[in-house]
Amino acid sequence: MDVVVRGSRRYEHQTWPEVRAAVERGAGIVLPLGAIEQHGPHLPLDTDSFLARELVLAGSAGHDVLVAPMVPYGYRSRPLSGGGPSFPGTLSLSGATFVAVVSEVLSGLIAHGFRRLLLYSWHMENQNFAYEAAYLAAAGREGVKSVVMEAPFDSLSDETMKALYGGEFPGWPAEHASIMETSVMLHLRPDLVDMTKAVDDRVEREPPYDVIPPPAEITTRSGVLYRATQASAQKGALAFEEIAARLAQVLDAEFPDLALR
Amino acid sequence: MDVVVRGSRRYEHQTWPEVRAAVERGAGIVLPLGAIEQHGPHLPLDTDSFLARELVLAGSAGHDVLVAPMVPYGYRSRPLSGGGPSFPGTLSLSGATFVAVVSEVLSGLIAHGFRRLLLYSWHMENQNFAYEAAYLAAAGREGVKSVVMEAPFDSLSDETMKALYGGEFPGWPAEHASIMETSVMLHLRPDLVDMTKAVDDRVEREPPYDVIPPPAEITTRSGVLYRATQASAQKGALAFEEIAARLAQVLDAEFPDLALR
Amino acid sequence: MDVVVRGSRRYEHQTWPEVRAAVERGAGIVLPLGAIEQHGPHLPLDTDSFLARELVLAGSAGHDVLVAPMVPYGYRSRPLSGGGPSFPGTLSLSGATFVAVVSEVLSGLIAHGFRRLLLYSWHMENQNFAYEAAYLAAAGREGVKSVVMEAPFDSLSDETMKALYGGEFPGWPAEHASIMETSVMLHLRPDLVDMTKAVDDRVEREPPYDVIPPPAEITTRSGVLYRATQASAQKGALAFEEIAARLAQVLDAEFPDLALR
Amino acid sequence: MDVVVRGSRRYEHQTWPEVRAAVERGAGIVLPLGAIEQHGPHLPLDTDSFLARELVLAGSAGHDVLVAPMVPYGYRSRPLSGGGPSFPGTLSLSGATFVAVVSEVLSGLIAHGFRRLLLYSWHMENQNFAYEAAYLAAAGREGVKSVVMEAPFDSLSDETMKALYGGEFPGWPAEHASIMETSVMLHLRPDLVDMTKAVDDRVEREPPYDVIPPPAEITTRSGVLYRATQASAQKGALAFEEIAARLAQVLDAEFPDLALR
Amino acid sequence: MDVVVRGSRRYEHQTWPEVRAAVERGAGIVLPLGAIEQHGPHLPLDTDSFLARELVLAGSAGHDVLVAPMVPYGYRSRPLSGGGPSFPGTLSLSGATFVAVVSEVLSGLIAHGFRRLLLYSWHMENQNFAYEAAYLAAAGREGVKSVVMEAPFDSLSDETMKALYGGEFPGWPAEHASIMETSVMLHLRPDLVDMTKAVDDRVEREPPYDVIPPPAEITTRSGVLYRATQASAQKGALAFEEIAARLAQVLDAEFPDLALR
Amino acid sequence: MDVVVRGSRRYEHQTWPEVRAAVERGAGIVLPLGAIEQHGPHLPLDTDSFLARELVLAGSAGHDVLVAPMVPYGYRSRPLSGGGPSFPGTLSLSGATFVAVVSEVLSGLIAHGFRRLLLYSWHMENQNFAYEAAYLAAAGREGVKSVVMEAPFDSLSDETMKALYGGEFPGWPAEHASIMETSVMLHLRPDLVDMTKAVDDRVEREPPYDVIPPPAEITTRSGVLYRATQASAQKGALAFEEIAARLAQVLDAEFPDLALR
Repeated sequence: MDVVVRGSRRYEHQTWPEVRAAVERGAGIVLPLGAIEQHGPHLPLDTDSFLARELVLAGSAGHDVLVAPMVPYGYRSRPLSGGGPSFPGTLSLSGATFVAVVSEVLSGLIAHGFRRLLLYSWHMENQNFAYEAAYLAAAGREGVKSVVMEAPFDSLSDETMKALYGGEFPGWPAEHASIMETSVMLHLRPDLVDMTKAVDDRVEREPPYDVIPPPAEITTRSGVLYRATQASAQKGALAFEEIAARLAQVLDAEFPDLALR
Repeated sequence: MDVVVRGSRRYEHQTWPEVRAAVERGAGIVLPLGAIEQHGPHLPLDTDSFLARELVLAGSAGHDVLVAPMVPYGYRSRPLSGGGPSFPGTLSLSGATFVAVVSEVLSGLIAHGFRRLLLYSWHMENQNFAYEAAYLAAAGREGVKSVVMEAPFDSLSDETMKALYGGEFPGWPAEHASIMETSVMLHLRPDLVDMTKAVDDRVEREPPYDVIPPPAEITTRSGVLYRATQASAQKGALAFEEIAARLAQVLDAEFPDLALR
Repeated sequence: MDVVVRGSRRYEHQTWPEVRAAVERGAGIVLPLGAIEQHGPHLPLDTDSFLARELVLAGSAGHDVLVAPMVPYGYRSRPLSGGGPSFPGTLSLSGATFVAVVSEVLSGLIAHGFRRLLLYSWHMENQNFAYEAAYLAAAGREGVKSVVMEAPFDSLSDETMKALYGGEFPGWPAEHASIMETSVMLHLRPDLVDMTKAVDDRVEREPPYDVIPPPAEITTRSGVLYRATQASAQKGALAFEEIAARLAQVLDAEFPDLALR
Repeated sequence: MDVVVRGSRRYEHQTWPEVRAAVERGAGIVLPLGAIEQHGPHLPLDTDSFLARELVLAGSAGHDVLVAPMVPYGYRSRPLSGGGPSFPGTLSLSGATFVAVVSEVLSGLIAHGFRRLLLYSWHMENQNFAYEAAYLAAAGREGVKSVVMEAPFDSLSDETMKALYGGEFPGWPAEHASIMETSVMLHLRPDLVDMTKAVDDRVEREPPYDVIPPPAEITTRSGVLYRATQASAQKGALAFEEIAARLAQVLDAEFPDLALR
Repeated sequence: MDVVVRGSRRYEHQTWPEVRAAVERGAGIVLPLGAIEQHGPHLPLDTDSFLARELVLAGSAGHDVLVAPMVPYGYRSRPLSGGGPSFPGTLSLSGATFVAVVSEVLSGLIAHGFRRLLLYSWHMENQNFAYEAAYLAAAGREGVKSVVMEAPFDSLSDETMKALYGGEFPGWPAEHASIMETSVMLHLRPDLVDMTKAVDDRVEREPPYDVIPPPAEITTRSGVLYRATQASAQKGALAFEEIAARLAQVLDAEFPDLALR
Repeated sequence: MDVVVRGSRRYEHQTWPEVRAAVERGAGIVLPLGAIEQHGPHLPLDTDSFLARELVLAGSAGHDVLVAPMVPYGYRSRPLSGGGPSFPGTLSLSGATFVAVVSEVLSGLIAHGFRRLLLYSWHMENQNFAYEAAYLAAAGREGVKSVVMEAPFDSLSDETMKALYGGEFPGWPAEHASIMETSVMLHLRPDLVDMTKAVDDRVEREPPYDVIPPPAEITTRSGVLYRATQASAQKGALAFEEIAARLAQVLDAEFPDLALR
């Protein structure tokens, strides 16, 4: 296949004839989803959205895939996995609105003729809402295949886990504004990370359920849910490469004829 | 506290003066959530809803708590944790409707004066939707405290895990219509379990993401996602008691003055 | 037709292969609708929902019909026919949410292949909302026939009316928590009826219109809108049999080939 | 009270200072509701809306009341009381949209300071939806009183009933495009009635439930559900005066200080 | 074409067989949209709705077109083009509800077989919402053509502009309750215009953006946004004829075979 | 005022303590709105969104204002001002969803304590929807002031207009992917403009109304609605500076104490 892709693979950088050509050759679409959510005193609010987009761009670089314009806002931050809505700065959509936006974007892409779609969410709270959006837009649509990745960080190799956490992995909900996210941000955008503000923190109590309103002790004062000071650009590169590679594998497995080469 | 509770603690069995009395003495409410979802060839469709209600009744028996009328229908079944919508029999609500129902029920309870609420969901797909409902009904309501348990099975003791699974626990998504659920049903309602139909099964492939439409190999033909034949009423009693006790602990921790005695 | 039905005809007690078989042989579905609504000091809050389900189970026993899982909650109680929302205990859905739930359940049943549906509502306030749900789910669906019974109590024989009311029938809106409902509950679940609390009552004024907020005199203090003390299990048996038989006649008339034998 | 009302009491004919004055003196509002629905071969489609407005204007003439702009469209026509949606010409709103419009109009009136509201619906299918709209707009609003008349034709005197129907009253659902409606239209707008097309008709079967799609025999071919040929302007004047007088009585009873002089 | 149209071309004045005949001969539909909005101390609140309907009736008189029942209520009045919601009397719908009503009415017309539709809005704030309604009802419907006129006043001839405004046209947003609207009302319904109350007015500041809440100086105290005293019935006749003729031209251009003669 | 702003004024680049500080010192928020819409064969799809954000960043640089994360998607492209939905690439939201997203974002900002908000939309079709979102989020909120700019390009100086268009300005709807937009893009992101593909084009017919489905002649084949070849980076700089300066003036006028220095 002789695919000529202009510099950018971001959907929004294409012209309409380029999108037409992409549809005609059967290109795929990846839609990154994230959040505007507090990430401690040292990371920017769009950490989730930014990581989603960068990982998608890197992970799909070997495939004929356009990266759709990210909806920056995600579903409500929850106390145990993101600090919750009481932190200044966090901006969230209701479940119904988040589903509507994502579903209408996917419907529009399907209406234009795209048939291979992948939703990629880097924000635990988007789970099930992302699926619902894909279900509403794509279920029962002849010839359309949609992949929904709602926890793309969930399958790091043992070596990487060890490099990142030693033996003390706190679980993914607590990996918020902590070692992995801080490291990847240091790798990609050190200018947006203020390590002088980074702290280690831990909730006093981590119940396997939520409480509304959240008692002070189930979230932290800093918004960091584990250890941010142990982050490094090197760890970030390691994690970034592996998570991006994982997306490439998923694309290979689910959409094999999108592979460039 | 001198509480006289009639035989039933089910909200729907109360008269209105009894509800008024419950509000006046500060009683709590637990609302069980489940699903109508295929559970293999041997278990009834309401396994999730039924287990939610029975666990709640047992787990809250030592507290001054009424059990609200269960909404039997849950959010869409997903292939990797319940077989998905293609199985005959499964009946699901959209995310928006599920949230609306649960939220309006909670709002009604709060309007009547209840201040201590617990949502208890036995259906993985309800996650985040149950939280959204509680958030919409209760966030910012002065004096109202809501607990949202979205995976109450998630904290069995090592002994029980060993008794149930030997050393081969497949993960909670695959524990669908399998050892634990079948066992608890055998313990509670053996008349609704047809062990002659029970099978062991396993998906060929269990990707950490979803696909729409689901390829045949990521769910099973039987609807059992692991091993149902290894179930027993004895295992069921063990699991039931422990999961119910866990709810009692949560009530003790979050609503200590609801404890009877 | 050689239909083997397991003990229970409740949809939620079936396994998925049993639902598949029901669809394949053309079985029908009846969905009971009720309410959680005050029924005086002597009857439980779920009187409407419970009666709907029991009448449906009895009335459809001679037909190849599954009884779908009841949505226990109904549309808002209104003062003149149920006391209204100010009584403690009453829990209602908004019109929009009630329609959405019922409509999605019916749509799911139709998607599985059921073609003969009957909505059976024992709560006057559900009227028109039940129809709207059926209309949204079923209108224009090729081969689907839906019956909507919104006042199944509305056609008792003269003998039964006389046995129940003597010559003093107060009209159906006032037959709330009164002779008929109390009698049928005494027939079916005497353990849930506390006749020591039963009273006779009557609104001071019964205008042919509603008022928001309701003036005290258009509803009663007790929540009983007529006479509860005159109820008896014997009267209840009479009414129950006749109302159930009426459903059987409707099934015979509208879905004649569902008759067993 | 010295009220100067300009010629028209229709809200839409007022200027904004006139509305301000109406609010300041505590005037009431009546909002007529109807439908665009087939009314046989001899009556116009807006019979319900037109009658609602004319009755309201006449019935409230002795009170300090403005008549709000009618929403001409009503909830779906149903086969047994209006012929249903299959007749050409009938235009209906969904339940959700009808509720939204009426509720927003009432909310706007309340926001301007009106405190005495009456909803007056001449279309049986609007029942419960009209109440829901009033409930959503007005329930819990301090100082606001709303009356909801959903069947204003429901209380004619025995003499009028006899004059209209002899002894053969078919019930209100069948009184569609028949004696009473035709007569009142002949009284008010004979130019819009074509008595050369009027017919007598009757459904073959009038079940106490609805069927979707409606079988031919539960509605009529003509759209007249009883006898239109027996209508006369004289009967219409009789019915019109009495129904209008009934509204005046309701206003007297519920809003006594709105009575002019 | 031998079309016999009864006296009225208003849709609501037709009988159902007349609508059937209209569909069969391919007649068109025009749906007028307006608002209930303050129009100064001298014009009635329904000026926009009334003008929309009258212009449509006049402008379509030479075409085989029925005029659908006007939804009197429009989208929210905005300060710079209508004074905004703070004026007593103004009653508006939310955007979502306005779209739903108009869209459902259009869908109903299309369901009955009408294929040529024209939306005609005399209220600037309805812009884009009217289009959305038409888009939702008609886009992708085979054989349906919809015209959406959202500013039908926007193309007066130079002569008329000069006759109306001399050389001092203030722009259309300020032409609210001013020369043109007042003149046309004097032409059509002088009984509803109180020229003794008419004033000339002007906002102190007319920013090219909106402010919520509106500062006093961006709207007027009177609700007249320019000069009302310069209105005359003669100017009104001029404008009315030309704007109506413009509609006739649009019908000729877009639906040429609807022309009568 | 001693304000220390970090390098970026983009909201999403802040940490939560920085947002808290911004709220505490009374900083303002500008939310840019645009679209993903075809812009001819030479401009990227996100031209509207990108220009909105860049103009906002430049125009608010002298004020204590954070720029909120842009919602990239806008309301439906319309044929006469953007080519409409039939061009490949264009991705739009429904009106209801666009309003919901923008409204929830604004509500979140207000909940965090921001009191000075400005919506800035560079996409004509967003008009009224942007206002509705601001109205729903902000109307009646004590102490909150919102400015809604829906056509920020609408007030260029005569000199700039002449420099851009000579004397042949086609009107703003036709200024799509044409001289001004292309020029500003050449000024800001020449790497995303392919001038070898730029064309001049013009609709055959430009009616003052819309048609669904759009006839071929009311839009262009290229998607350029006027002349793209006459664009230059120099013209772009001119327009950019002036439009940005205009925003600065609005901020000065409406939020004078946000001016830095």
